[in-house]
Amino acid sequence: MRARDLGLACGALPPGLRNTIADVPGVLVGHCTRSEGAVQTGVTAILPHDGDLFQTKPLAAACITNGFGKSVGLVQLGELGTLETPILLTNTFAVGACSGALIRRAIAADPEIGRRTATVNPVVLECNDGYLNDIQAMAVTEADALAAIDAAAETFALGAVGAGTGMSCFGFKGGIGSASRRLRLDGATYHLGVLVLANFGRAGDLRLPDGRRVDPESGVMEEQGSCIVVIGTDIPVECRQLERVARRAGVGLAWCGSFWGNGSGDIAVAFTTAGPVAQEPDADFQERRVLVEGRIDRLFQAAAEATQEAVLDALAGAETTAGRNGHVRVGLAEVLGRS
Amino acid sequence: MRARDLGLACGALPPGLRNTIADVPGVLVGHCTRSEGAVQTGVTAILPHDGDLFQTKPLAAACITNGFGKSVGLVQLGELGTLETPILLTNTFAVGACSGALIRRAIAADPEIGRRTATVNPVVLECNDGYLNDIQAMAVTEADALAAIDAAAETFALGAVGAGTGMSCFGFKGGIGSASRRLRLDGATYHLGVLVLANFGRAGDLRLPDGRRVDPESGVMEEQGSCIVVIGTDIPVECRQLERVARRAGVGLAWCGSFWGNGSGDIAVAFTTAGPVAQEPDADFQERRVLVEGRIDRLFQAAAEATQEAVLDALAGAETTAGRNGHVRVGLAEVLGRS
Amino acid sequence: MRARDLGLACGALPPGLRNTIADVPGVLVGHCTRSEGAVQTGVTAILPHDGDLFQTKPLAAACITNGFGKSVGLVQLGELGTLETPILLTNTFAVGACSGALIRRAIAADPEIGRRTATVNPVVLECNDGYLNDIQAMAVTEADALAAIDAAAETFALGAVGAGTGMSCFGFKGGIGSASRRLRLDGATYHLGVLVLANFGRAGDLRLPDGRRVDPESGVMEEQGSCIVVIGTDIPVECRQLERVARRAGVGLAWCGSFWGNGSGDIAVAFTTAGPVAQEPDADFQERRVLVEGRIDRLFQAAAEATQEAVLDALAGAETTAGRNGHVRVGLAEVLGRS
Amino acid sequence: MRARDLGLACGALPPGLRNTIADVPGVLVGHCTRSEGAVQTGVTAILPHDGDLFQTKPLAAACITNGFGKSVGLVQLGELGTLETPILLTNTFAVGACSGALIRRAIAADPEIGRRTATVNPVVLECNDGYLNDIQAMAVTEADALAAIDAAAETFALGAVGAGTGMSCFGFKGGIGSASRRLRLDGATYHLGVLVLANFGRAGDLRLPDGRRVDPESGVMEEQGSCIVVIGTDIPVECRQLERVARRAGVGLAWCGSFWGNGSGDIAVAFTTAGPVAQEPDADFQERRVLVEGRIDRLFQAAAEATQEAVLDALAGAETTAGRNGHVRVGLAEVLGRS
Repeated sequence: MRARDLGLACGALPPGLRNTIADVPGVLVGHCTRSEGAVQTGVTAILPHDGDLFQTKPLAAACITNGFGKSVGLVQLGELGTLETPILLTNTFAVGACSGALIRRAIAADPEIGRRTATVNPVVLECNDGYLNDIQAMAVTEADALAAIDAAAETFALGAVGAGTGMSCFGFKGGIGSASRRLRLDGATYHLGVLVLANFGRAGDLRLPDGRRVDPESGVMEEQGSCIVVIGTDIPVECRQLERVARRAGVGLAWCGSFWGNGSGDIAVAFTTAGPVAQEPDADFQERRVLVEGRIDRLFQAAAEATQEAVLDALAGAETTAGRNGHVRVGLAEVLGRS
Repeated sequence: MRARDLGLACGALPPGLRNTIADVPGVLVGHCTRSEGAVQTGVTAILPHDGDLFQTKPLAAACITNGFGKSVGLVQLGELGTLETPILLTNTFAVGACSGALIRRAIAADPEIGRRTATVNPVVLECNDGYLNDIQAMAVTEADALAAIDAAAETFALGAVGAGTGMSCFGFKGGIGSASRRLRLDGATYHLGVLVLANFGRAGDLRLPDGRRVDPESGVMEEQGSCIVVIGTDIPVECRQLERVARRAGVGLAWCGSFWGNGSGDIAVAFTTAGPVAQEPDADFQERRVLVEGRIDRLFQAAAEATQEAVLDALAGAETTAGRNGHVRVGLAEVLGRS
Repeated sequence: MRARDLGLACGALPPGLRNTIADVPGVLVGHCTRSEGAVQTGVTAILPHDGDLFQTKPLAAACITNGFGKSVGLVQLGELGTLETPILLTNTFAVGACSGALIRRAIAADPEIGRRTATVNPVVLECNDGYLNDIQAMAVTEADALAAIDAAAETFALGAVGAGTGMSCFGFKGGIGSASRRLRLDGATYHLGVLVLANFGRAGDLRLPDGRRVDPESGVMEEQGSCIVVIGTDIPVECRQLERVARRAGVGLAWCGSFWGNGSGDIAVAFTTAGPVAQEPDADFQERRVLVEGRIDRLFQAAAEATQEAVLDALAGAETTAGRNGHVRVGLAEVLGRS
Repeated sequence: MRARDLGLACGALPPGLRNTIADVPGVLVGHCTRSEGAVQTGVTAILPHDGDLFQTKPLAAACITNGFGKSVGLVQLGELGTLETPILLTNTFAVGACSGALIRRAIAADPEIGRRTATVNPVVLECNDGYLNDIQAMAVTEADALAAIDAAAETFALGAVGAGTGMSCFGFKGGIGSASRRLRLDGATYHLGVLVLANFGRAGDLRLPDGRRVDPESGVMEEQGSCIVVIGTDIPVECRQLERVARRAGVGLAWCGSFWGNGSGDIAVAFTTAGPVAQEPDADFQERRVLVEGRIDRLFQAAAEATQEAVLDALAGAETTAGRNGHVRVGLAEVLGRS
């Protein structure tokens, strides 16, 4: 079930064919889901391209809307403006395992890492799925992380899968959602896509695109969640512009009803597949195409709309789930169907 | 006409008595309005307290949600975390005159400024009122700035007054709006108040609290506006917390329908009247009361709600105005009354 | 007298022909000096190119090493990554007059500013020359600012001229200094040049390149100064890289003996003359050449070395000056000649 | 061998009794050293106090002087301004193991972490010791991390120990160094101490306090290092001030001859032991003592001096070390003794 199947389309710009981040040519997504009793967690991998990311680094930038989070890799991302690994999403206590997997995988592909060349910068983002998942079990392994990467494809599941398996959102079952927008620039078609790991929002604060508020009426939800927003595009932009685009993820979260709570790690990473950087370039300069600043409002609008819709898509796709200690989160589709 | 008179209350927290920033004890607001034909502009002054701000400096912080703006004073504000002058709001090209007025006024009160002691840091924030106002006329004078300060009081006009005289918002007449929220902490009552200079938003993007969209149907509005948000509180917080609170102004703007357009200078300054800093303290340490971080969500919610309502309050209060070159902006109240 | 005439060459990279910021092709510098009794101040203008900067905007970035300063224009510079006016340097209380001059000059050249197009973002940076100059007199006029711009040329005076007229540095007479470095990239020759307005440093802290410390022995100097560093280059770099380069100004100041005192506004602006941005581009994308990140250490070293040497150059060029209230600052050349 | 034993005292302020970070009352440091053939690495733990850091969180801030680094925990540290775990230093690829150890140790002490309360934010900082150490072996284990914490004491080894075992600095053997400064404020004695993990600087760039340059003449050293600077104090300061103090670590590195190379992760974390924050406070406000801003220059100078001296202390204490692939780094003491 997608957000649009529930009548929850957002904004004015047209979506891409799949209405996911994989509408950006080359972008792949994979999951590893760990759903066994009190273990309700997993890993989701986003690959900006199918090749060696250490050798061919996509331009990227991050924006920390609210920094109550334990991400890895954002310091170097901010300084150098490039990705060197797949982006992994997982639970808070699985960041170490996922980082280890990314490092070992990069070394296997590039044996000079940490020897002749620099080390590699793993990027791992997280939310706390401790309501449904026994996070203290630290169940995610390096093998799980690799499995998510290996599963990466243009089509992928949404809802309570991968890193989204145990997440909660506005008191409902949260998880993985996605959306995209199609844009025309200089006579060509481009895409901007968003994938979210939605685990934020107080029960009662959810706002649908038509202004309705929906409450799970399942009691108080402690606001200790987070929302990770990954934005991909094939539009040629520079890092400063990517940071501006990433910032608009916060608009999308606000449009869903959030005020970016204290306990929420609301973090966005944006990348472009255009004009990647070589690890060992053979010249001192690179030619690059860059968007004219005066055209950037379309990207801002696309990022805001697609973030909003991706959150609703996570809610739409995530079915009612039971986990640790008898805890249950109800799926939004079930509640909307009821009413 | 206030936002609530039009049925446009926002959020869940209770407002203060006046539902303005002046519900924060000691805060004063004054205007100087210049409305003569093609000159439709002015100055609005916010005084955190009635005394010598250079001698007794309120703690403050700023957040730049989108930096297409020409404010003055934010670099030092960010480094030192204090205000030293009233905050002046005006049009983009009047920043120099307002700065000059603040400097001369400070020197008059403290003749050692720039001699024995450091210089003074004027804080002036601006929006471009060039649609209604002949901004090239540079009509605002230092005397106008002083007049706004001298007029500061607990009660003050709203809408198309002071710096808001020539502003536009979502294609309607914009201007000055305000709102406040009441909070209970450790058994005492506190306030957080917001004053906005609302000059942002594309026509058609305005969203009312119930989800309705309202369009002035007055043709395209170029998004070259801005929104200045001033947040005051008497809650004892430190600068890091004030920055976090100021960041939530962006939520309020998003709740009004904005995606923080490229051409908008969306800037918030937050101050607290609690625990100000002396220019020449007689000890090496100061005792201070600081909010516990786990209680800050109420301030975030108050800042987001009051910013949203203050923008609607500006729209509610601003009557249809004609200015330069036959340009007209219609008041929202008029359009809502019609429908 | 230049720094090298006093044996104060810095670092290992070769200087350009003039060893000033004007070694960057197209860059011009002009002064307006106000030296009459207690008025010891002025304006210095740096023009990245000789044309209409609003129509053809150089890429730029800023770094605030210590933010006790009252600069204008850095918020928008950081957001959009472009300059739209000459960079003006002046005393703290002349920022308003200089901003006004830049606005009026831009309007005269582009009458659509603030009407059909956006407003213009003046960039003015300042230091407090209040020891020698009667800063409260606010003597600098808009005409002075325009005179500095009109005087801009490839060759220009150094030391106690323009904005440097009344400045102090490590207890000596400070002022305007400059230096440059020559770099080879992809078989071509490029330049990175620095111009400083040096008004920082406690007496006794100055360190010469050979490690010697020199003390004016003229009593305590209150650390209320600042240092403005303007870095220009013709190397094609993007804004993120310009910010990294600007950050290295702080290295140069540290190499002079400073620890970036609390009262110092240590601010750097870096621009490139390569690949400027049009105000009204006729396509959605621009082709741009960008430096490969792995080659950036040379620019870092050049920026650090040239900043250090530019400060020493200001000290070398500034002759003993008397000003307000019988205050005198001795020139470094005089003291070094004595010893 | 300490820096002062080699005549390498820095600056003007007096050191504390031990001249280490442990002069700050309550601060403890421990190492786990892994030195076996091609494995030359380890872990160093800094404990701001001996108790449960999750329950009683020291105020802290970070400054990223150059962000080519893979640290963990700085996003949340920046947002909330507190430490929740010991600070661990290690090699780049051991960050995951060290994070895991910190999480498991915190859970063991506070079984409600990730259940009733929020998750814990491990802070791990790193350098690349790949020249001497087989970093691909990923030899550091969670047990090693715990061993470093368990070994924490007021007296601790310096030089090629713990995380410093395999590090290089200016072409010499690098490692762990420390220094402190004693300060009088309001009639009482306070300390500011620094501990560095020194692994930065090109061969030939090292500059001793008297201005001499020392070159290991051991061929080119690739600048792929980093320097981690941990600053502790018992002076009551707020987070904004701690960030300002942390920024001055960059001054100390510059005084050693560095220009903060592109490949260097130069990152500082500063904490105060004064006025820690409770995980579950029983009131909405906390009383706190805060340093008056006008007195902060002493802390800046102390941080700069102690950082410079701590780097020299690491060089002084680190003996010639052989590691992976026949690589050798010579100790500075040996070279200075020779000359």
